[in-house]
Amino acid sequence: MNADFVNPFLESLLNVLGTMASTTLTPGKPKLKKGEVAHGDVSGLIGLVGPETKGSLSISFQESLALEIMQRMLGENPGKINEEVTDMVGEITNMVTGGAKVLLAKKGYDFNMATPIVVAGKNHTISHMSDGTKIMIPFTSPDGNAMIEICFDKVK
Amino acid sequence: MNADFVNPFLESLLNVLGTMASTTLTPGKPKLKKGEVAHGDVSGLIGLVGPETKGSLSISFQESLALEIMQRMLGENPGKINEEVTDMVGEITNMVTGGAKVLLAKKGYDFNMATPIVVAGKNHTISHMSDGTKIMIPFTSPDGNAMIEICFDKVK
Repeated sequence: MNADFVNPFLESLLNVLGTMASTTLTPGKPKLKKGEVAHGDVSGLIGLVGPETKGSLSISFQESLALEIMQRMLGENPGKINEEVTDMVGEITNMVTGGAKVLLAKKGYDFNMATPIVVAGKNHTISHMSDGTKIMIPFTSPDGNAMIEICFDKVK
Repeated sequence: MNADFVNPFLESLLNVLGTMASTTLTPGKPKLKKGEVAHGDVSGLIGLVGPETKGSLSISFQESLALEIMQRMLGENPGKINEEVTDMVGEITNMVTGGAKVLLAKKGYDFNMATPIVVAGKNHTISHMSDGTKIMIPFTSPDGNAMIEICFDKVK
């Protein structure tokens, strides 16, 4: 696994949540996905299209963590996942991917981002259909867990 | 709403399910999304990146319909949404979007597709974060319902 490629996403999520929501997540060890399925209660998904390959990214949150971020970012906790929370998760997904895109462009990786989609539903699963390596980056916090998944098709 | 733009997606889904799974869906009237939230049990999502704009597409299925398509396409019905079903929904999403892409390219609309992501979870909701018009195309069948949503950002 290439740390050059994984770290920008990890750093970007820590940076976005730290600056926007004073929330500190503890990153776990990134790992290659082999059969595991990512679960979450609310997930931001974004398609990625590069000159040589294409892929997708997801950031999944447990409900408790999403609501705590909402409380810290906007000073209100709606008590459940509503439209304000899905908007916030879409915005976080855009910022994290955009932040990683800038860091990766400096290292010679280039891609364009589609618009985000946010999925809400208790304990849904996410399956990325790319045929390349799938990387999972887990995050923990006292308020709940998050997971980034990212993958790109094999370059033909 | 521009029928030139909507019809390729509608036709492409009918065509893919008709030829691959001998399944006939009845399309409803496409409508602009205004506050409604699309629900489904299994959804294929795909990011779209064009030269002037970007967007996203989703195809959501009720579980009963997804399992019936699985039965007709592969001759087996696993009785619940498992990895084979999510793979099939990802493949359908790819084929439908690819089919529409070919039709739209002939009309002068051009975009590239990211890789699909499939979400599974009872009655999850889908929120497209594009700032442009969101179009919903409902489909009904004796085995359950499906919904295509598509949107692109406003061209700046």
